Amino acid sequence: MNIKEEVITKAKEAKKAAKALANISSVLKNKALLAMADELERSTEEILAANREDMDFGRDNGLPEPLLDRLLLTEERIEGMAQGLREVAQLDDPIGEVLEMKKRPNGLKIGQVRVPLGVIGIIYEARPNVTADAAGLCLKSGNAVLLRGGSNAINSNKAITNVLAKAAYEAGLPEGVVQLVESTDREAVQVMFKLNKYLDVLIPRGGAGLIQAVVNNSTVPVIETGVGNCHTYIDSEADLDMAKDITINAKTQRTGVCNSMETLLVHEDIAEEFLPIIIEELKNKDTLVKGCSRVQKIVDNIEAATEEDWATEYLDYILAIRVVNDLDEALSHIDKYSTKHSEAIITENYTKAQKFLDLVDAAAVYVNASTRFTDGGQFGLGAEIGISTQKLHARGPMGINQLTTNKYIIYGNGQIRE
Amino acid sequence: MNIKEEVITKAKEAKKAAKALANISSVLKNKALLAMADELERSTEEILAANREDMDFGRDNGLPEPLLDRLLLTEERIEGMAQGLREVAQLDDPIGEVLEMKKRPNGLKIGQVRVPLGVIGIIYEARPNVTADAAGLCLKSGNAVLLRGGSNAINSNKAITNVLAKAAYEAGLPEGVVQLVESTDREAVQVMFKLNKYLDVLIPRGGAGLIQAVVNNSTVPVIETGVGNCHTYIDSEADLDMAKDITINAKTQRTGVCNSMETLLVHEDIAEEFLPIIIEELKNKDTLVKGCSRVQKIVDNIEAATEEDWATEYLDYILAIRVVNDLDEALSHIDKYSTKHSEAIITENYTKAQKFLDLVDAAAVYVNASTRFTDGGQFGLGAEIGISTQKLHARGPMGINQLTTNKYIIYGNGQIRE
Repeated sequence: MNIKEEVITKAKEAKKAAKALANISSVLKNKALLAMADELERSTEEILAANREDMDFGRDNGLPEPLLDRLLLTEERIEGMAQGLREVAQLDDPIGEVLEMKKRPNGLKIGQVRVPLGVIGIIYEARPNVTADAAGLCLKSGNAVLLRGGSNAINSNKAITNVLAKAAYEAGLPEGVVQLVESTDREAVQVMFKLNKYLDVLIPRGGAGLIQAVVNNSTVPVIETGVGNCHTYIDSEADLDMAKDITINAKTQRTGVCNSMETLLVHEDIAEEFLPIIIEELKNKDTLVKGCSRVQKIVDNIEAATEEDWATEYLDYILAIRVVNDLDEALSHIDKYSTKHSEAIITENYTKAQKFLDLVDAAAVYVNASTRFTDGGQFGLGAEIGISTQKLHARGPMGINQLTTNKYIIYGNGQIRE
Repeated sequence: MNIKEEVITKAKEAKKAAKALANISSVLKNKALLAMADELERSTEEILAANREDMDFGRDNGLPEPLLDRLLLTEERIEGMAQGLREVAQLDDPIGEVLEMKKRPNGLKIGQVRVPLGVIGIIYEARPNVTADAAGLCLKSGNAVLLRGGSNAINSNKAITNVLAKAAYEAGLPEGVVQLVESTDREAVQVMFKLNKYLDVLIPRGGAGLIQAVVNNSTVPVIETGVGNCHTYIDSEADLDMAKDITINAKTQRTGVCNSMETLLVHEDIAEEFLPIIIEELKNKDTLVKGCSRVQKIVDNIEAATEEDWATEYLDYILAIRVVNDLDEALSHIDKYSTKHSEAIITENYTKAQKFLDLVDAAAVYVNASTRFTDGGQFGLGAEIGISTQKLHARGPMGINQLTTNKYIIYGNGQIRE
């Protein structure tokens, strides 16, 4: 079977499975999710063996250490995947919920019912745990899923998908609800981009390059996820202790994630007081600081931040700092460089807080809190499939509700249009 | 200025205007909408003169009569456009509505506020009234709009846009909230397809060819609208009088619209009784009937319906009829040929009605009513920008709420992530 045939055959099977899955009871879906979790744990040895092949291949091919770490599976990580599936089983089933049924003057009862999207294509990079996470969320929301993971994780992904698909089928779900594209050739992704007939949506999970490739080439509707060049603005009227804690948390609590801070904007009135303190703290946390010329004047030995720095999502222990004249200059900076993910103001001033909330265009806008909270779990949505940075369909953390659509249902008794 | 420059310049201005428009009060937006309505009426002569140029050009170039009719403006139609703007002014402002603000265990107050999409690109065909309708809906929902109408209507569209833009600006809206691409070259549309930097969404309004071109070529997110190959299934347990009235209404009340019926499916048990009656009625309404072989056996002189007929959105006084063995065969037919717009079952049987509602995958699924009701006004949404036949973001009639997105706003008091 050639690459194109493989993708189309699997997408077709997924489409067929999706039709059957759309009306399956929560009881059966939850039973399948729990069986998948159990089966993952029972298959730990087999999955770890497959993962060792990927790790060996990755090491031989000089995969960088952070990527190897993402690729690595351990007994604990497999338990984590199983636990994730069990948590998804606990979530309320979104499917079938009727929103806003109203009676019209002519007697028609018109409502909207939540239904699955259909087949969701997920294109992701090296992390094999995405395989189980995405499959669980898609199934719970009544969708079939066509997975396409990174080539580095192909053996791990095959092992995990085989376990999940078998457990789902044996628990009573239709055959084909979880499919993995096994071809690691790029052509496979190109085929997925044009499969409007079988795929209802594509969700890329990975770096900016992957996301741009999907957005630029897919005719299937895409939900963009994840790039976060996040800012925190410390206002002249900030509580500086709070500002310090939030800055350290947003930058250093975890750096390789999209909701971590990349640029700190500091009001000029407090720059002389605040910068020496915060830069000292950041250095204690092994964080490299780059600064604008005004930062360089206040603190010695600061590397110059360039235009490129303002636009960079470091995902690392690096922070760009800029001194601004006022809130308006902070807003302009954010407007220019933000990827519209998460932005925060630290201030005790009511009017400035409201202005920031009103004027910043981003998925999540914070007053006096760390941007690190932009996360499905933290927002109370349960597990998340990703964080949308686009405006259509879903914005911000996407839980299972965001993997659904609505259809209008209309109960009549013979109404015709005049 | 070349074509590309024109489009980019206007899109850029629209983006700038959109930022200002996003936080403008309802009072000011409504004032502008009413001023636009008044100014349209005051400029009737000038708009009609521009329209005469388009009509003359269209006639000289052999534009078919139905297209000329869509292109034609009259005093009454201009009043209709003005009235439409006044109705949009009456709608509640969707912007700023806070949905579901909740307090999390850590004290963060997390809510979602409804905000505009930004800049909406509308690509449409010959009907110049779309210019005013779309502009009104976009402005009310806080969006700037970049319009690109059909070349046949260019003079009418220019005249209408000039009037609207001037009135909006004089009423106090930012400059550039309503823009028309004046180049009638196809290159202009190609440029719009790739303007992700300035356009937040593209909405095509027109025939299947236009919609497909936009879906296949745009990297800007698209909301697909409108193609409706709608079915009505008359069950063996239908009230046949009701079935007759609904069939006639769905097919003949207005034929050139996407929610009219194109194929009638009739259960075999009632076919011999129902078909002669309904075909007679349809003929009285000048409707050409095409039928499957079973229809041809029951009624004389029926043209054979081909595979192509089942897939055709006639938008005309033509109806394809097929006799089916049962509900399942009707569901399979709909599943195969439906464009997922509007589908109806006529039955007195409760279980079959629920099964149809559950299993049909379409924007609107009806029991015992005409598919002609799929319309923003009829559904109680106020005016509509189109009917989405896709699943992402919006499905079915799209009113002003569907021209918005959300952003999360988070009120903290120093929270950091553990």
